[in-house]
Amino acid sequence: MEEMEELFAELAKMIDSGEYIQLKKELNDMNPANIAEFFEQLSAEKQLFAFRLLTKDMAAEAFSYMDSDTQEHIVKSITDNEVRNIVDEMFLDDTVDFLGEAPANLVNKVLRNMDADKRNLVNQFLNYPDNSAGSIMTIEFVQFRADMTVAKAMEELRKTGLDKETVYTCYVLDASRILIGVLPLRTLIFAEDDMVISQLMEEDVISVQTLDDQEDIAYIFKKYNLISVPVVDKEGRMVGIITVDDIVDVIEQETTEDMEKMSALLPSDEAYLKTSVVALSKNRIVWLCVLMISGTLSGLVIGQYENLLEAAVVLSSFIPILTGTGGNAGSQASTTIIRGMALGEIEISDIAKVLWKEIRVGLLCGSILGFVNLIRLTLFSSKTNFQVDFTISLSMCFVVVVAKGVGCMLPIMAKALKFDPAIMAGPLISTVVDVIALLIFFNIAKVLIL
Amino acid sequence: MEEMEELFAELAKMIDSGEYIQLKKELNDMNPANIAEFFEQLSAEKQLFAFRLLTKDMAAEAFSYMDSDTQEHIVKSITDNEVRNIVDEMFLDDTVDFLGEAPANLVNKVLRNMDADKRNLVNQFLNYPDNSAGSIMTIEFVQFRADMTVAKAMEELRKTGLDKETVYTCYVLDASRILIGVLPLRTLIFAEDDMVISQLMEEDVISVQTLDDQEDIAYIFKKYNLISVPVVDKEGRMVGIITVDDIVDVIEQETTEDMEKMSALLPSDEAYLKTSVVALSKNRIVWLCVLMISGTLSGLVIGQYENLLEAAVVLSSFIPILTGTGGNAGSQASTTIIRGMALGEIEISDIAKVLWKEIRVGLLCGSILGFVNLIRLTLFSSKTNFQVDFTISLSMCFVVVVAKGVGCMLPIMAKALKFDPAIMAGPLISTVVDVIALLIFFNIAKVLIL
Repeated sequence: MEEMEELFAELAKMIDSGEYIQLKKELNDMNPANIAEFFEQLSAEKQLFAFRLLTKDMAAEAFSYMDSDTQEHIVKSITDNEVRNIVDEMFLDDTVDFLGEAPANLVNKVLRNMDADKRNLVNQFLNYPDNSAGSIMTIEFVQFRADMTVAKAMEELRKTGLDKETVYTCYVLDASRILIGVLPLRTLIFAEDDMVISQLMEEDVISVQTLDDQEDIAYIFKKYNLISVPVVDKEGRMVGIITVDDIVDVIEQETTEDMEKMSALLPSDEAYLKTSVVALSKNRIVWLCVLMISGTLSGLVIGQYENLLEAAVVLSSFIPILTGTGGNAGSQASTTIIRGMALGEIEISDIAKVLWKEIRVGLLCGSILGFVNLIRLTLFSSKTNFQVDFTISLSMCFVVVVAKGVGCMLPIMAKALKFDPAIMAGPLISTVVDVIALLIFFNIAKVLIL
Repeated sequence: MEEMEELFAELAKMIDSGEYIQLKKELNDMNPANIAEFFEQLSAEKQLFAFRLLTKDMAAEAFSYMDSDTQEHIVKSITDNEVRNIVDEMFLDDTVDFLGEAPANLVNKVLRNMDADKRNLVNQFLNYPDNSAGSIMTIEFVQFRADMTVAKAMEELRKTGLDKETVYTCYVLDASRILIGVLPLRTLIFAEDDMVISQLMEEDVISVQTLDDQEDIAYIFKKYNLISVPVVDKEGRMVGIITVDDIVDVIEQETTEDMEKMSALLPSDEAYLKTSVVALSKNRIVWLCVLMISGTLSGLVIGQYENLLEAAVVLSSFIPILTGTGGNAGSQASTTIIRGMALGEIEISDIAKVLWKEIRVGLLCGSILGFVNLIRLTLFSSKTNFQVDFTISLSMCFVVVVAKGVGCMLPIMAKALKFDPAIMAGPLISTVVDVIALLIFFNIAKVLIL
């Protein structure tokens, strides 16, 4: 990492001092991902200067690694001719990614520099729903016919393969473009020249459909350890491939989304430091408001027991510890279940097993916490008598059991009702558990103290 | 998914009725990941019966996809000879994965069925620290010398490549096994027969070291869109490769760990339904206890203001809504920052920018929440006068600002102190914010009400 920063500093110096021959050589020797990182640190003007030193190939490749701000600035500043060069060289999925984020005037600038065929294709891709297979696939794949010989296939591959996103899995299509087999490149290169593709291909093809959800596709990649997967339309015609590098991004994006939902945030794709205060607040205020208003329920419960609290005001100082512990115990259970469901380890049909397990965990944890609490109060709390100490400790135990139960049930029920289980996490669980905890506490107190 | 279950039911029926010829054919035609899934549903005896119908290759491949329980049962039941067959065919990283989890007697059974070379290697792999590059790499890679011609290299590849985990990137080593270049298979197959490897190879190699942390390696895969990466020792000698399918697992494992820490759970590798109640409770009780005991702080704060509460007992019914909203606001900020740091979007040096942003977000969200609350109380709460309503709403606004500040600072500070930022999430933040929220509330109340 430090070496990289030194290199970047050196390159920046070359820009300043105008050593552009040396700079050009250095840049075109670099990894495109690193060029992109370097560009993101440059001022707009310098970006443009340095970009024009890149070879055509490298410019397109580095461009596809850049963040959307840098991409937009470059497209805004370069000529139509330069745009055409980039678009010609870029893979279709990277072009579509860029266009999906870019403002309308830039989208137009890019589209008018494409030939009509590609433009139609791009428009079609931009119309696939977010998070569908169609929205993340690319069309650069290697295709063979079943009756080709190995020699002929290798010749095809040599002719066209360098432009393809992955040549390591080749696809066999019939005359109406129906996918009928796959052929790993390793099989092809280890085969005799006169063998025929249909003898070599695997017919048992794992494929996905254009409208399949990206999360399900990620699951398939993990299950079968895939590097790429073919995408077919409803009629079984092959339209594209999805490669594992895009799936890695999908997995990150989906987990970020889950974490956001679990913390009562609306999901957002933007990087934090680039998001405005208003946009951040918008993502947060909705749930804060909903939870605040549902939180008034616990206020109402407390209001109902005002007489009790007036008689023993000391009880009110135990409200936070009971609701807090309940919330924590519930969050633990809900996170465990939400993650387990996301990883496919827990199904809706496991509901009874899960509940029974959580109740036992709740009893064990609750008893320990109640006991610890009782000792602490008896030893260190001079303000409370044993009756109060016992009330609080017994409530603690009950609250934990109920919190575990609620924490594990709500995510499963959400999934059964086709909601995202991730919303049934910490914040919402705490709000629900708060009310129950208070009811348990006050009712035990009424019996034991009044 | 449903088709799969039908197929499994059919296969199970074949086992019951002893149609083993048909069963053998079906099984050996299946994808090894699906065979593994099928086996996991079978009873121990039937597993063994079906396992013996698999061809040697298929047995080893399916075995490497199975969960550890199924693997252990099979190894326990088969003969030494059968163990040897599996171990011969399996990739080293899968063998090491299995041995890392297996009980001692099975480890012995496997080790004594390996030749001495492989045994030494396995022992060395088992000694790499958890989560290091060494612990997830494998040794099956294709290696060339720099002075080979393309024709010679292809011949080598044909001879040895089928056993390699990936043949799609080949590595060029010098006489002392130092890694000097990489060669994507696509370059090799598109090259003329008489070219020499040293002309074709890329010398600018991205590699990792045996002791590098798997999380950093995952970051490198994402940055450069890699399919595999070479692993070198301190002297630069190549010892193995890591492939992207293992990195996908690493990413999942690391995010699960983060989520667990963020919900006050100790991380665990076991699947939920297979973990005992006692083990689950152990993972939960530690933080519950710590948080409960730190939660007594808020009790102490309330105790300090007992006079205030006796004078206006209605205030106590607003404790949960203030601490709850504060906790939620803080969790939102901490989750955003923790995830941003995990994805490399936020650095420790951004601390001032982050704090300034969160304070403004807090002011905006806090004002809105305070205002909504004021309206709600004025309209619907008959028990409180305007003074009380205003106290609560003003406190709400302050609490949210402070919660956002605490929520964003603690994870960054944790990282600066080399702790995992993920522990500074919801539960811990809530406990801290509870205390501050109560202090803000009671002090405003003292001024405005008493």
